[in-house]
Amino acid sequence: MFKDNKEPVKISELGEFKLIEHLTQNIKLNHDSSKIGIGDDAAVLFHGDKDTVVSTDMLVEGVHFDMVFTPLKHLGYKAVVVNLSDIYAMNATPTQITVSLAISSKYSANAIEEIYEGMMLAAKKYNIDIVGGDTTSSFSGLVISITAIGEIEKDKAVLRSGAKENDLIVLSGDVGGAYVGLTVLQEEKAVWKVNPNSQPDFSGKDYILGRQLKPEARKDIVELLKKLEVKPNAMIDVSDGLSSEIKHICKQSNVGCNIYEEKIPIDPLTYNTAREYELDPTMCALNGGEDYELLFTIAQSDYDKIKGNPNLTVIGHITPKESGTNLVTTGGSVTPLKAQGWDGFAGKEE
Amino acid sequence: MFKDNKEPVKISELGEFKLIEHLTQNIKLNHDSSKIGIGDDAAVLFHGDKDTVVSTDMLVEGVHFDMVFTPLKHLGYKAVVVNLSDIYAMNATPTQITVSLAISSKYSANAIEEIYEGMMLAAKKYNIDIVGGDTTSSFSGLVISITAIGEIEKDKAVLRSGAKENDLIVLSGDVGGAYVGLTVLQEEKAVWKVNPNSQPDFSGKDYILGRQLKPEARKDIVELLKKLEVKPNAMIDVSDGLSSEIKHICKQSNVGCNIYEEKIPIDPLTYNTAREYELDPTMCALNGGEDYELLFTIAQSDYDKIKGNPNLTVIGHITPKESGTNLVTTGGSVTPLKAQGWDGFAGKEE
Repeated sequence: MFKDNKEPVKISELGEFKLIEHLTQNIKLNHDSSKIGIGDDAAVLFHGDKDTVVSTDMLVEGVHFDMVFTPLKHLGYKAVVVNLSDIYAMNATPTQITVSLAISSKYSANAIEEIYEGMMLAAKKYNIDIVGGDTTSSFSGLVISITAIGEIEKDKAVLRSGAKENDLIVLSGDVGGAYVGLTVLQEEKAVWKVNPNSQPDFSGKDYILGRQLKPEARKDIVELLKKLEVKPNAMIDVSDGLSSEIKHICKQSNVGCNIYEEKIPIDPLTYNTAREYELDPTMCALNGGEDYELLFTIAQSDYDKIKGNPNLTVIGHITPKESGTNLVTTGGSVTPLKAQGWDGFAGKEE
Repeated sequence: MFKDNKEPVKISELGEFKLIEHLTQNIKLNHDSSKIGIGDDAAVLFHGDKDTVVSTDMLVEGVHFDMVFTPLKHLGYKAVVVNLSDIYAMNATPTQITVSLAISSKYSANAIEEIYEGMMLAAKKYNIDIVGGDTTSSFSGLVISITAIGEIEKDKAVLRSGAKENDLIVLSGDVGGAYVGLTVLQEEKAVWKVNPNSQPDFSGKDYILGRQLKPEARKDIVELLKKLEVKPNAMIDVSDGLSSEIKHICKQSNVGCNIYEEKIPIDPLTYNTAREYELDPTMCALNGGEDYELLFTIAQSDYDKIKGNPNLTVIGHITPKESGTNLVTTGGSVTPLKAQGWDGFAGKEE
């Protein structure tokens, strides 16, 4: 217990994951209807002939978004999408959300309305209902907290803990774009701060800016997997960075992995812009986060069903736990994956 | 739409209720499983042979709590209880919560642990599971957002909209204590600010300080009503103030009411302390808020079942809509009820 320490434990030194692990280690589930609690993308509740899936996410001004370059409507849209992504990561269908907002006096009602418009746009696109919420004032920035609720056939939720040795590791879409997009926005903001008359140059960067400012959840992948009759053994969404997410799956499934650097799907614009900003594209892809792609493992016998699908890339395979979680570089060397993740407490952002 | 206004609309001028009403007016429910959405204490979802009830509430530092006089463990406890209160106000049984925290760097992990301890204490007392959450950093104060999930027999949730003409209006416990307790804490803080060596004098004030700092949700009342075989026609919890809550019921039920000042249950300590601080006890009871009592209406034919129960007081009755929502004062005059409520945006707090 931290309270037994003589010195206060700094959250920045501990890190977000360790703090959460520590805080939640003593939480036990007592209800028969609580099937899966903390530690997956969403909780799984059983309230009848289907399972209910619940997930919650908080976006904080200055930590998760910068009002200088975030359009309010996009912010509302993104706040919904990142929550739905967690429901899809259970292989479930989101059906409802609740929305809580804390708003400082610097925001007008018009501004809040724009955020709501973005949320309602996302609700329409993903066919979910906004069923409740709480709106309150804040003495500082804006905080958006959303809880998403979804449903899935009884006992069919795909957990992080189901990966099996020799499973293939599959990723939807491409990664690293959201992080490189954020870098572009932050650099242009820095230029603008020095010279407020400068015009930001975003030409040709639409794709990666969109990945950062208006991401989408991979509803289509969940539908595709159903159509292909592929049920993943384990699944997670890529919010904190590919490396961190793979390690979550391996830890909770008690297995290891090999990820092949050359297989990681990176969009050419992401790659070239990373180079332009003197960033290592592979590091952006592994640790950037906020891509909201789905990462999952499947039995090798399912490979033929997904082979050649442009939305899906096999990036590695599951190994015995003793082998560890490794990156096989393009040069052929094997190096342990580091889960730098996207850790607000470490002040990686800005 | 606010965005059509030429001038920004200030939230402080608009008020919280109007802002929410405006923001949510266009939200439609599309899923068959979304039975009740925004506008009640909790949403009602249908996922099988029982209904699922969902509610969310956010507590913001400086708005809902003052770290100078709020013990962290109590804060965690209260954050859970205020959410459970919304579930009980549907006549439902809470089963799970999710917890989101935004934490500024001024808090140590020890501090967060204390908050969690308070939450887990409440979870144990009310027999609920903590099934998920999100923990993130904040550049300013502490924000706690909790979503509570509960269950109830199909179609049995008690809504705000079910009050019928001639129903009796019943209140559990007593009201005004939490507000007067807050006043004591704020006054002592003001004294302490002027003279930091002064010792606050809280002797004999335990009950009202407890009402403010460590409120309880009326699980016992929901159980009592079941035992007495009384199903309220309408119910709400008293979080924003008795007057405001009665007006919610009347508006959503399309009825009026008469509330009798002399019937409003006020604890002697609340009464005397209000007088001590030159506050009108009736105003504290009507507009104070944060009492987390249950306010409900029952058919007159159920009166014999609750008669004489020390936990329940009949404070008025439902009238036709045209009669309006009125307070009948001890002197016998009739005056319209004002819903001052507990409105963070108006800066009533501090």
